[in-house]
Amino acid sequence: MNVEKTAAIVGVGLIGSAWSVAFARAGWRVQMYDERAAACEAYGAWADATWDAMVAHKLVTAADARAARQRVTLCSTLPDALDGACYVQESAAETVEVKTSLFSQLDGLIGKDTIIGSSSSGIPGSAFTEECKHRGRMLICHPVNPPHLIPLVELVPTPWTDPEVVEKARGIMTAIGQTPILVRKEIGGFVLNRLQGALLNEAWALYEDGVASLDDIDATVRDGLGLRWEFMGPFETIDLNAPGGISDYASRFRRMYSEMNNGRKKGPWPDDVIKRADEDRAALLSRSQLKPRSEWRDGYLMDLVAFRKGMKRD
Amino acid sequence: MNVEKTAAIVGVGLIGSAWSVAFARAGWRVQMYDERAAACEAYGAWADATWDAMVAHKLVTAADARAARQRVTLCSTLPDALDGACYVQESAAETVEVKTSLFSQLDGLIGKDTIIGSSSSGIPGSAFTEECKHRGRMLICHPVNPPHLIPLVELVPTPWTDPEVVEKARGIMTAIGQTPILVRKEIGGFVLNRLQGALLNEAWALYEDGVASLDDIDATVRDGLGLRWEFMGPFETIDLNAPGGISDYASRFRRMYSEMNNGRKKGPWPDDVIKRADEDRAALLSRSQLKPRSEWRDGYLMDLVAFRKGMKRD
Repeated sequence: MNVEKTAAIVGVGLIGSAWSVAFARAGWRVQMYDERAAACEAYGAWADATWDAMVAHKLVTAADARAARQRVTLCSTLPDALDGACYVQESAAETVEVKTSLFSQLDGLIGKDTIIGSSSSGIPGSAFTEECKHRGRMLICHPVNPPHLIPLVELVPTPWTDPEVVEKARGIMTAIGQTPILVRKEIGGFVLNRLQGALLNEAWALYEDGVASLDDIDATVRDGLGLRWEFMGPFETIDLNAPGGISDYASRFRRMYSEMNNGRKKGPWPDDVIKRADEDRAALLSRSQLKPRSEWRDGYLMDLVAFRKGMKRD
Repeated sequence: MNVEKTAAIVGVGLIGSAWSVAFARAGWRVQMYDERAAACEAYGAWADATWDAMVAHKLVTAADARAARQRVTLCSTLPDALDGACYVQESAAETVEVKTSLFSQLDGLIGKDTIIGSSSSGIPGSAFTEECKHRGRMLICHPVNPPHLIPLVELVPTPWTDPEVVEKARGIMTAIGQTPILVRKEIGGFVLNRLQGALLNEAWALYEDGVASLDDIDATVRDGLGLRWEFMGPFETIDLNAPGGISDYASRFRRMYSEMNNGRKKGPWPDDVIKRADEDRAALLSRSQLKPRSEWRDGYLMDLVAFRKGMKRD
């Protein structure tokens, strides 16, 4: 068995299942485990549908999809899943209790070089790995849902994660086609959710203050800002938006952005505003259409990923 | 002459030139004026190159491009440009003085139903239209650069803009293929720059605090968040991200986002941080490459727009 290309995925929910596709597509053997039998039973139909959709959207050939699908095994015990794996992607429920207990088990079972990345989206690794013997080989590898389509992964080491392990995890993520970034401090929300949160909090504040309708705020992103951000981050965007680059841009506009920032208090989203937003969304999209619209989103995302594959990005 | 489809564009800079393409492509006659002879002289080569690029990126056929190009006339006087125009897109320099003087001139020249939209990206319309006789027909129509590729337009009425005029401006923008949104209050930065600013301020704060490198913050957007925002705004994104929709999502996550928001003070971008960012960007992209990279960006954007044209978005 090729230990260097065997991943164990612990937790066969939405995220763990999507991880299996990302690893298998890159030629890795994937060994999955979930103590919940129902999750394992649901996996087969989900995987078949997902690979079929990827073939239909020209993200993979039918032959490659078939071969990849066959590299995934559902295991009936945790030790079976870990057997021969150089990397474990933990994707269990997002509570400190579940993760603490699971990491303690994993700690007693993993091979001597095995690295464990957690899909935790908010709980820092130090909250559930401190007591582990092998805590130097544990870190957060936070994906964006679904990781087989959206490449970004946040690597968030704990204070005791071995720097070499961080580099190995980065190498694994790069090898399977993800885009790993390094979050140097265990800050709440890491980087992705902090950026998303900043925009969301402003969106809620604009909506609460009646500056624009909910759908007009959404349009500003999907028909405006999103056309840049699909292929350039905020710093490159401003670097190219003034003749002298980023410092030129900053000297022209930082006062404007600073004034915007200080203009209004942004508290938590109030109950009555959430209620109003819920009614507005229901008027735009009947609640019975949430699922079909999510399917449309998934299809659109696959087409967008196929488009990106054909583009030279640097 | 078809008055209903004749636009005057006053100011033949980057924005005014791009507006000419948006109107002409939609079948409008376009009459341009700029008191600066050099701007008018530069227009021809710019327009030829822009239409050629759009043809090359399959955004328009060569025949349609040729016909559209011929619908644009450079006028030698302001009255000539306004003659027969039902709509004026003011795209002059962004200072209160320039706009006040220009709107005063336009006020004395426009036909009885003509509407004037200003491309102002930050100065509210009330700062330069108050004294005009026809101020009820003046408002901000703020585009995103370049408007012939990025559809969003912010309509920002002043307190004295006639509501019917807002609706007419919305109709004109929709007719030429833009996505108009209504900004109900003359708030600094309108909606687009407030949303952009919220994300930018957080990005600068994360960079200043050493949470992630400049390029990793950019990657978080271009390989993560941007893949959603290219086709869905923040509210639709969260509406589809919890089984019960937006209120379900809000009840699960608002505390997390509120805590992120309150966690750190975000002041203006400090000089030393800007200097560091400038060095980081220079290491990523030699300053001599700013122009070629901008050309790459423009080409990518055209391909992205061509992709979007083929997609069903709702």
